[in-house]
Parts: sequence; C-alpha cells; structure tokens
Amino acid sequence: MRIVALSGGIGGARFLRGLLTVLEPADDVTVIANTADDIWVFGLRVCPDLDTLMYTLGGAIDEHRGWGRADETWNVRQELAAYEAEPGWFGLGDRDLATHVVRTQMLRGGHPLSAVTSALCRRWRPGARLLPMSDDRVETHVVVEDGSGRRAIHFQEYWVRHRAGLPVRDVVAVGADQAQPAPGVLRAICDADVIVLPPSNPIVSIGAILGVAEIAAAVRAAPAPVVGVSPIVGGSAVSGMADQLLRGLAIENTAAGVALHYGPRQHGGCLDGWLVHTSDEHELPRIGAAGIRAEAVPLLMSDIEAAGDMARAALDMAGRLAR
Amino acid sequence: MRIVALSGGIGGARFLRGLLTVLEPADDVTVIANTADDIWVFGLRVCPDLDTLMYTLGGAIDEHRGWGRADETWNVRQELAAYEAEPGWFGLGDRDLATHVVRTQMLRGGHPLSAVTSALCRRWRPGARLLPMSDDRVETHVVVEDGSGRRAIHFQEYWVRHRAGLPVRDVVAVGADQAQPAPGVLRAICDADVIVLPPSNPIVSIGAILGVAEIAAAVRAAPAPVVGVSPIVGGSAVSGMADQLLRGLAIENTAAGVALHYGPRQHGGCLDGWLVHTSDEHELPRIGAAGIRAEAVPLLMSDIEAAGDMARAALDMAGRLAR
Repeated sequence: MRIVALSGGIGGARFLRGLLTVLEPADDVTVIANTADDIWVFGLRVCPDLDTLMYTLGGAIDEHRGWGRADETWNVRQELAAYEAEPGWFGLGDRDLATHVVRTQMLRGGHPLSAVTSALCRRWRPGARLLPMSDDRVETHVVVEDGSGRRAIHFQEYWVRHRAGLPVRDVVAVGADQAQPAPGVLRAICDADVIVLPPSNPIVSIGAILGVAEIAAAVRAAPAPVVGVSPIVGGSAVSGMADQLLRGLAIENTAAGVALHYGPRQHGGCLDGWLVHTSDEHELPRIGAAGIRAEAVPLLMSDIEAAGDMARAALDMAGRLAR
Repeated sequence: MRIVALSGGIGGARFLRGLLTVLEPADDVTVIANTADDIWVFGLRVCPDLDTLMYTLGGAIDEHRGWGRADETWNVRQELAAYEAEPGWFGLGDRDLATHVVRTQMLRGGHPLSAVTSALCRRWRPGARLLPMSDDRVETHVVVEDGSGRRAIHFQEYWVRHRAGLPVRDVVAVGADQAQPAPGVLRAICDADVIVLPPSNPIVSIGAILGVAEIAAAVRAAPAPVVGVSPIVGGSAVSGMADQLLRGLAIENTAAGVALHYGPRQHGGCLDGWLVHTSDEHELPRIGAAGIRAEAVPLLMSDIEAAGDMARAALDMAGRLAR
C-alpha cells in the first residue's frame, strides 16, 4: 500500500511515527512536509517541520518538547545571546544546529532542498520518504494588529517570539503562487492508495502545503481516498496555540469546523473522510451532511501505541472509502 | 606610547597579553593580525589568529590548548561528524562556533572583516585595537610533495590535518599581491612609537602580514624602531610544528636565522632589534654583524608575568633604539 501524508511538525510527526508501527513490510510511506515555516536565522536555513519529522521518525527527537534533539545542549545559543545576535528569541540547540549548518552549506552549494533533505535522511533513516512540499521559497506571514498598528510578521516570529499572542487579521503564504511542487510530490499523490492528513495545523501546516496550487489540484484529483485526522479535540487544538490562529481567521474552532474548512472532495474540497475524537461524536452528523464520511475514535496521542491506533483507524476508513 | 604589533595566533597572543600588563594607562596598542590562515569551513568563516588574539586578550581562551574557548563543548562537531560533513579534520567547538556564525552573517551582509572584528571585540574588550591585516582575501597555501605528487593545500590543511607532517616545497600567499591593508593599518604603523614583532611564525604569520606590499613598505619606512622577539629557542620553534616549515623553506632554524630572514631595516629588511633567548646568547654577534641590535633575555612564556618581562625587554630595547 502506498500511503502519502501531508504533514506539519509535532502532531503530524507523532501520528506518522504511530503509522509506521502498523504497516506491513511492503507498505510505503511518502511524507510531503510543510516548508512555509522555514526561516533564515543567524545565516542558517532552519526547516522546523522537516526537522521535527526527521528527528521524530529517526528516533532522535526530544520527547518532552516535541521538537529539536534529545540530549540537547545550548552553548551556541548562550554565546549568540552574549553577542546580542538577532533574533534572540529563536533558540537553536547545539546538536540541532549541525543539521542547519549542513543544510545551509548544501543549499549555498546549489542543491535544492529536496536533495538536501534526502541527504540528511541518509543519516536519520526515518522509515518514510520525506519530501519538502516545494524547493521554492514559500513563507507564511501572519498579519497581526496591536497597539503599534497592522503588520505582517514571519510565522516563526508570531509563533515563537509572541507565542501566538498577537491578534491575527490574516495569514498569507508569500511565494506560494509561484512555487512548484518538489520533485516526486505530484507523482506520489497520483500513485497513492491512501492520502492522509495527520492532525497538523489546517492553516499554516497542511493549508500551506495545499497553498501550492498544483499540490491542491493533485490532491483533489487523486484516485486515492483522502482521510484526515482532526487536530481539534473538544473545541481546542491539541497542541495549544493553534486556537488563536483559527479564531483570528474566523474558522470555527471545532473538529467539524476544520473538516468544513477543508471541504468535501465531491464539492471541490480535499477530504473524503474525517476522524474526530470520541468526545466530539456529536459533530458527526454535521460533517456527514456536508459530504464527508466521519467517524469518532480516540485521538489523543498519549504514546506511540495510541498514535498507531489512530493511524490504523485512518487506514481502515480509507479502505472502506476506496471500495 | 603608541605600540603596534604584527601578530599571529598563540605565541603572539600570549606575548601581547604580557605586554598589556606592563603598560602605562596612556599607552595604546594596535595589533595587526594575520588573516592568511583564515578559512571557510562548513560554510562559516573562521579566522584562527584573530580569534586566538580576541579570546586570549579577552580572557576567554582555553589556556591548555592555547586556542578556542575555555569550558568548550563539542556537540556540533560530533553531529557534523555523524553527517560525515567535510572537512572532518577541522574541529570547531560549540562556543567558538557562535563567533563564526556571527562573523559569517556580518560578512555575508556586506561588512568588511575589519568592521566585523571591531563588532566582535565590543564583547571581548581585548584591551588593544585589533585589526585584520587586510579586508581582502589572502590565503597561505603550502606546496607539499609526497607519494601522491606535488600539490598546494590550504595552510590549515597542512597544519591541522597533516600536523605539519608533509614535506614542504614552498609557501605561497594567494591574493597577497592584490590585497590592500585594512583601514587603520598604515596609519597605525606610521604613527607608532614602537613596532613589535611578537614571537609568531616568521613565514605564515608575520611573513603573511608583510606579504601585503603596502604594509611591508610602511614598516620599512616607519619612524618608530622595529623590535622582534625570536620564536625560535635553541634551534627549535617554541610552539613546535613551525620547525618543519622553516626547514622546508631552507631558512636556518635558529634565532639568528630568523633575524637574518627578516633582515636589518638599514638594508631593506624590517628589523632594528631582536631578542633571543638567554641560551642563544652565542648567536648575538652574528645578528649584530648583520646590522640588527640583538640582546639575550629569557623568552619562555611560562606565565603572564614572564610574557610581561619579555614585552618590557622589547620596549626597553625599542627605547634605546629610538634615542
């Protein structure tokens, strides 16, 4: 079975780690990762979602934080702070930094991000093919408004520096209109037996991937069923800060709200099926009425086994949808 | 008193740290540092001599190694090795690396090395004005010959990777013929009351600085006396690996040999006075006969006080030469 997932960072990575535990040996997973959170800091190219996926699936993630390397040290960061180097709000661990050094050197040498990612994965062996959504630069900017007026800031500044604490007026994906899918992305979608949307942020993660027009068109036209897993449980994002973002964009902050935001494929959206948490079972009728098959299963990834159960539920639903 | 020193890394830095302890408050020191050992590694610009000077005079040096930061950790290096990133033979400590990150970012932003150095020194307060010899790229390459033939390699590769263990046929300073002195260098030499050559490598450190034609001309024409301190004691370089280099270039590996290599200013060289170690007293007549005032004093920098005594001896000699 060929499985394609469109994924952001922490939530998607944990879901996919579970998925990999429930597959048959012949199954094959391609992860198309959001790169619109990527940022240049201290002259280094940092790809938060690719790295979180790579470290999580490669067994090197800091389990507690959910991002960055286990057994991390922070001496470079401390020194950069002593130099008053900007941006002081962006923390790079020493071990993690080596990844950015290698990536930056390869990018400056002319290699596209997809080739760099493939090279980095030779070390991490994530058990899935990891593709950036695009080799082109796409950057999510958040239009915020506070006492000092309205301005657009990089998503990382909104998320890390301001901890999603500024009122959001809009989210724009700079460069998305000109970005091409990275090599292998369209082919993987086209050849997939199942397309999965893990519980990632529907705006800045999966939304950014679908912001590349050719990827969205391929997902809409794919022969495989598309099954998503709600990142919202009981009216709030499982990982916290996404709530404010949805509120700012006037997207209903419920499992059904996100499903309707994606929309049913039969009406030009990109979902065939949607899993909600058991406590959100009451939302199933609304989702079904919109033309999206919905089921309620436990969606809390307390451990790898629970994530595996979620993944199996998504694959089972896809199997029923494919018939 | 305005003192100018032309310096390499470890030996020069230790001498200058001693010098700073014996000055009067009104004295003023400008260090013109060799930059021909500088190298791009892992996409970062590393300036070994500038950094050794900055860390030594700024109180942050690793005393045992003589280079790099005290309390260093090596996690980035370990990770780079796990990625099999080249050059694997070049070791960057985590704390040290932050300096290169800041420098590289500034250089890529268009700031010349002299401005970058000045910015870095705002943190380290070395107690002397630290100038790179040039903002232009000059690189010492060592022509070596071994079983695989004759080839030119970067000085760092010769020194760090091969630990000066390859037979040397020549040393060339790539770019020196087109390099201009950094801002402030010529003015400092011209205005100096004393010019000092610390016990640095006469070929790849001080020789590289004098390889910038306008600097050599300024030193030859300077009104101030030029006093040097022998880096060779008893027929071998104090810091070790320089011996092979001198041998390869057929420069006599003695205190007198190096003095004659620099030559007396009255005959187009750049030395007025030369300090040799007490055990090399027998070489004084030969040096004097060549037209260079020579004296024997203890030249082993066992501690800061000993380095201070050496510096005082150099200043005293300069005082006598100036009369």
